[in-house]
Amino acid sequence: MQSKKPIGIFDSGLGGLTTARELMRVLPNEDIIYFGDTGRVPYGNKSVDTIIKYANQDANFLLKNNVKAIIAACGTVSSIARGLYDTLPVPYTGVLRPTAKSALKATKNGKIGVIGTTATINSHSYQKHIAELSKDAWVFEQDCPLFVPLVENGFTDPEDTVVSEVIRRYVEPLIQKGVDTLILGCTHYPILKNAIAKVMGEGVTLVDSGRATALYTAELLKSKNLLNHSKEEGTYKFFVSDTPHNFEHLAGVFLQKDIEGMVTQIDIEAY
Amino acid sequence: MQSKKPIGIFDSGLGGLTTARELMRVLPNEDIIYFGDTGRVPYGNKSVDTIIKYANQDANFLLKNNVKAIIAACGTVSSIARGLYDTLPVPYTGVLRPTAKSALKATKNGKIGVIGTTATINSHSYQKHIAELSKDAWVFEQDCPLFVPLVENGFTDPEDTVVSEVIRRYVEPLIQKGVDTLILGCTHYPILKNAIAKVMGEGVTLVDSGRATALYTAELLKSKNLLNHSKEEGTYKFFVSDTPHNFEHLAGVFLQKDIEGMVTQIDIEAY
Repeated sequence: MQSKKPIGIFDSGLGGLTTARELMRVLPNEDIIYFGDTGRVPYGNKSVDTIIKYANQDANFLLKNNVKAIIAACGTVSSIARGLYDTLPVPYTGVLRPTAKSALKATKNGKIGVIGTTATINSHSYQKHIAELSKDAWVFEQDCPLFVPLVENGFTDPEDTVVSEVIRRYVEPLIQKGVDTLILGCTHYPILKNAIAKVMGEGVTLVDSGRATALYTAELLKSKNLLNHSKEEGTYKFFVSDTPHNFEHLAGVFLQKDIEGMVTQIDIEAY
Repeated sequence: MQSKKPIGIFDSGLGGLTTARELMRVLPNEDIIYFGDTGRVPYGNKSVDTIIKYANQDANFLLKNNVKAIIAACGTVSSIARGLYDTLPVPYTGVLRPTAKSALKATKNGKIGVIGTTATINSHSYQKHIAELSKDAWVFEQDCPLFVPLVENGFTDPEDTVVSEVIRRYVEPLIQKGVDTLILGCTHYPILKNAIAKVMGEGVTLVDSGRATALYTAELLKSKNLLNHSKEEGTYKFFVSDTPHNFEHLAGVFLQKDIEGMVTQIDIEAY
C-alpha cells in the first residue's frame, strides 16, 4: 500500500521552508505542496482566535489540493491550534511533539532551553509537551522577537557583532541556567543555527524543529501505509497569499533551492 | 465657522501614534479617532494592490465614525495610495507632501536623505514629491527594514551598541553623500530620533513626518473653516483590528500617554 498524493505544509510565511527542506531530504520521493501565508505574516503577535481562524483556512486550502497529510510548520500554530489534530480528515502534525521528543532524547542533564516567538513562549506549549512526556526535565523558556526580522533582513552571519550581540541578550539567561539542549522553537531559527551555536558554546545541542518534524512525518506516513514508493524525485508546488516576489527572493536562503517562477498567489480569505 | 467633528487618523499599526501625539500638541482642542490596523501590520512588505485595499477599508471605517478629515499617518499608505486623495469626501493628507515641504525648508546644501520601509523607498515617493516642489534638491534614499522591529522590541537606547550599529549600517551611505537633512519617512522612526541623530552627527537636521503632518493638518483645517474652537481639551478614541493588549502596552512609548482600557477591537475586513 502506498499513496502518491502530496504532503501539505503550511506556515505563516517563509520560515516553514526550513521544514520543507528537511522533508525533501528525509523523503526525497514525496510530492510537496507548500502554503506560506505571506499576506498575513507574522502570526506570532496575533490573538489566539485570529491564529486559529488562519490555521483552519490554511489547512482547508491544502485539503482542497488533495493532500494526504498536513504539517503545520509554524511554531505559533502548533502551540495554539492543537485542536486542528482532532478535526482534520488526514494525518496531521505540528512541530511541537516531534521536537519535544527529540530534545528529551538529546539532553543529558535534563535542562532544556526553548526559544521562540513571543506567542509560542507565552503559550508554554513546549514546556507542557515536555512535561507530558517526562517528569525529569526542567524547561527554561525565552522569547526572541527580533530573530525573525534579523533573518528576513539578512542579519545571519555568526561573525556579525549585531547578530551575536542580539542573540547573546536573549539567550544569556538560558546559559546561566545551564541548559545542555536548546530547542529552536521557530522555523526561522535554523538560519541562525551557526550563530546561536557560537553564542551558546560547545556542549549545548541545538534541536531543529524542522528536522525533528520531517523525521516524525516519515514515521507517521509509514505507520499509515501512506508513503510514496516511487523512484522518481518528488515535485514541489508553492503558494502564497501576497505577491510571490519577496517569497521567491528569500526562498533561496530558507530552502537552499531556486524556486523563481514556481510560486503562485492565492486568496486565502476565500478558504 | 467651525466643526466639532473628530479628526480621523489611521496607520498600519502603532507607528501613527507618533503623528497623533504631534497633532494633540499642535491642536489640543480637537477630538481624535485613531485606527491602527494591528491585525494586518506591517503594510511595508505587502503588495501595492493589498495596500490600496487596506487603505480604503481603513478610511471607510473612519468615515463611518463621522470624521471631518483623514490623515494617513503611514508612510507606506501615503506613498502608494495617493489615489485616496481624489476619492474621499473629506479633506485628506498623507505624510508625504507636508514632510517633503518641511525638508526643503530645512536643507541648506540641497542634499536630502530619506529613510523608510522598503515599500516606501522602492516607491521613490519622497523623491518624486520633492522633485515636484523643487528642481534644486538631490534626494538620497535608503530603506531600513530592521528599524520597526527594533522599536517594537525595545531596542531604542542611543547608547545601545546594537541600536547604533544597525543604524550606522543603514545610514552610512547617506552620510557619505553629505546630506544635511534627513527625512524620517516612517512613523516609527521618531522613537529612534535621538539614536539616529547621534549616528548622523551634528549639522544634520532630522525631519519628523509626524510633526510636519500635524502642522500641515492645522493649516488645512483652518483653510476649510473646520477647526474646533472649543476651549476644552480634545477627547481621544482608539481602535485596532487585533486584540488591544499589545497596542495598549506599547502605546506609552509612541504616544507618551497611558491609554490602558481605552482601546476597542473592530473587524476591519467588514469595512
